[in-house]
Amino acid sequence: MSRSKHDLDLHGASETHFSVMAPDAVIYPTSSEEVAAAVRICREHGCPVIGFGAGTSLEGHTAAPRGGVSVDFSKMSSVLAINAADMDVVVQPGVTREALNEELRATGLFFPVDPGANASLGGMASTRASGTTAVRYGTMKDNVIALEVVTAEGEIIRTGTRARKSSAGYDLTGLFVGSEGTLGLITELTLRLQGIPEATAAAVCAFPSLGAAVETVIETIQCAIPMARIEVLDAASIAAVNAHAGRDDPPQPHLFVEFHGSPATVAEQAEAFGALAEGNGGARFEWSAQEEDKRALWAARHAAYYAILASRPGARAVVTDVCVPISRLAEAMEAAVDDIEQSSIPGPILGHVGDGNYHAILLIDPEDPKDKNTALNLQKRMVENALALGGTATGEHGVGMGKLDHMEAEHGAAWGLMGDIKRALDPNAIMNPGKLVRQN
Amino acid sequence: MSRSKHDLDLHGASETHFSVMAPDAVIYPTSSEEVAAAVRICREHGCPVIGFGAGTSLEGHTAAPRGGVSVDFSKMSSVLAINAADMDVVVQPGVTREALNEELRATGLFFPVDPGANASLGGMASTRASGTTAVRYGTMKDNVIALEVVTAEGEIIRTGTRARKSSAGYDLTGLFVGSEGTLGLITELTLRLQGIPEATAAAVCAFPSLGAAVETVIETIQCAIPMARIEVLDAASIAAVNAHAGRDDPPQPHLFVEFHGSPATVAEQAEAFGALAEGNGGARFEWSAQEEDKRALWAARHAAYYAILASRPGARAVVTDVCVPISRLAEAMEAAVDDIEQSSIPGPILGHVGDGNYHAILLIDPEDPKDKNTALNLQKRMVENALALGGTATGEHGVGMGKLDHMEAEHGAAWGLMGDIKRALDPNAIMNPGKLVRQN
Repeated sequence: MSRSKHDLDLHGASETHFSVMAPDAVIYPTSSEEVAAAVRICREHGCPVIGFGAGTSLEGHTAAPRGGVSVDFSKMSSVLAINAADMDVVVQPGVTREALNEELRATGLFFPVDPGANASLGGMASTRASGTTAVRYGTMKDNVIALEVVTAEGEIIRTGTRARKSSAGYDLTGLFVGSEGTLGLITELTLRLQGIPEATAAAVCAFPSLGAAVETVIETIQCAIPMARIEVLDAASIAAVNAHAGRDDPPQPHLFVEFHGSPATVAEQAEAFGALAEGNGGARFEWSAQEEDKRALWAARHAAYYAILASRPGARAVVTDVCVPISRLAEAMEAAVDDIEQSSIPGPILGHVGDGNYHAILLIDPEDPKDKNTALNLQKRMVENALALGGTATGEHGVGMGKLDHMEAEHGAAWGLMGDIKRALDPNAIMNPGKLVRQN
Repeated sequence: MSRSKHDLDLHGASETHFSVMAPDAVIYPTSSEEVAAAVRICREHGCPVIGFGAGTSLEGHTAAPRGGVSVDFSKMSSVLAINAADMDVVVQPGVTREALNEELRATGLFFPVDPGANASLGGMASTRASGTTAVRYGTMKDNVIALEVVTAEGEIIRTGTRARKSSAGYDLTGLFVGSEGTLGLITELTLRLQGIPEATAAAVCAFPSLGAAVETVIETIQCAIPMARIEVLDAASIAAVNAHAGRDDPPQPHLFVEFHGSPATVAEQAEAFGALAEGNGGARFEWSAQEEDKRALWAARHAAYYAILASRPGARAVVTDVCVPISRLAEAMEAAVDDIEQSSIPGPILGHVGDGNYHAILLIDPEDPKDKNTALNLQKRMVENALALGGTATGEHGVGMGKLDHMEAEHGAAWGLMGDIKRALDPNAIMNPGKLVRQN
């Protein structure tokens, strides 16, 4: 256990715009039994319990607004079993995405969910994370097969088995994925793996407008051409990435795209996609099958958040995360671009266009409350517009504290039902209180 | 409303071995509001409410062991909206799988989940159904985007939006999918669609043993060859299908397989699969790209249940549904075949081998209680073996009344948590009581 100010502040801090809300103590359990024992003690004392993985979440999930104990999973970071024939793996929650793929390298398998940050897998499950590959491989919802969870009562339960599918009652695995530590703490995960594709091809392509880029993606999906990644960056994002990664892409909206398969299918898909892109005015279409070029391309995309942050020195970010039906994506993004352009702060936009999910990185001076207010107002309008278009306030970052105010508008009466579930499974309101759901 | 004996018996009957348990009344609502009003009246009177789709479920889901009102959704069977650009569709719960695909034909899109029976989509969601195509397209869990539900309080709620993904709180859609009408009634579904593949190829292939057939599938998955369907039939199933469908496949274990894609990718996948099959002793490997041949092939597979029933005149069936990690599938199936052979009743076995899910169709004389006892004992041992191998009692049929006794062994302490959820969302215990979960 640690009560040093440094540790407390570290665990109460956020990647984005939230101020530090430190817990009263940090513990570093090494087993599920230790986690369960800690939760039972906290329950007796009505003390909040907050899970902590890699601290890369964006909505204040790991902050401790009511104090309590931060449960840091960094000492529970073992890969417990690799079942190659079943293409699954059993891990502790502190294993990071990159560490897992490093351990899997020799098996020819990989774990596909890629939110950009080197998040912990427990954290990724807790926020129902996704990222650049969800268009092909799904989100954490689709890639967690089973969990071990310490409940709010301090009991260790298992949800699901290693079977690929089941109809054996309520989908508790699905309920805990995305529950942000408000119903229990994930202490073990069984994850679905994929075969490393024989061939991949990646490309970047400039378009005359966001609408033209999005239309290309809609047509690609309708032609059932299986994209492994398809990302859109607006002109402002491209400018930031150019400055940061030493690229020289023209200042226009771009698609970054990747295909996975056999050499023949990848070539076929790339050609079919190229024809659709050309039909929508796409230009400067460069395919690369060279490992080095592809790595540089995706490194640039992954560093876009930091590139954009660096474009305004000293800035912090409010990162929006709406997701809309893809048919409404172009209009939603264009409305957001217009709204940001008319505001006093910069906010480059990029997104997982195959899912209809995009982020505006709204850059604020952390010392200037007006900036933050402007950003939160922009975000509010983006969310309202997304809901009006049949979308959601958050595609992949979760609710935490940052999206709590939008939940009633999004869910209506179903919001009350979430509260019922919370009260049933955490009657003492100790599990990550103040996040995801309101509880008395 | 109907209270005719014919209607009551029809709604209290089962496809399989359950005796008739008739409701007190059947209603045929035409809108969500009518459903909500009926639930509110039932709630006032503590009267059970049982949803009824096409009546094709296998575990007594629609039976009324405590009487009550059967809510028949056959008059809520409209396709409400086809959103082609977003590849989704909004339907009422009484729409059947075949009716939906008929309506979609002109769009170039289809709904892939195919449990064999022409089930209603509300029923398929309620039991978390899957079937032959789950290996490629997933189960109902993966293909329901959002729901409208009438809760046990008689309130109409919406779970989810039309966005492709969301992290906005607890996954209520996932909670209601597979909840078998025990938490509420599904009154509208938003479903994910797929593009009709440009090309398909289907084949049937005999193997020297179940183990050799399963090994071929494991290798195919590991090579990331995307199968659209992969079904195993044991020698006894093949004999029944031969007799029923006029085929002349040799009396050995077979794989039925199908690939979807472009003509080139399908040809490539078929060739790669053929090489793996040959390496495992597969013979008589006949590819067919002819629409007529493929249709005959899958018609034979889909009719297998009825072919097997017909092989013992007058028989009823106990249909097992265990699902295990695919690495343990061959041993699980072989143990089941041995156990059945040593018993006094026939029980051909077939399965969705890509998912590790198989069914023994245990044929019983409905007049002979010894037969039923034998079948239930065989099923019990199959379930115990599946759980010991890391699997589940039910891959796709659901719990209903038939699998209730296995839930505690499968879920352990998590079983109590399912009860907590049930009590929180249905405090008056009116929603399909006696199914899925125990309540008081």
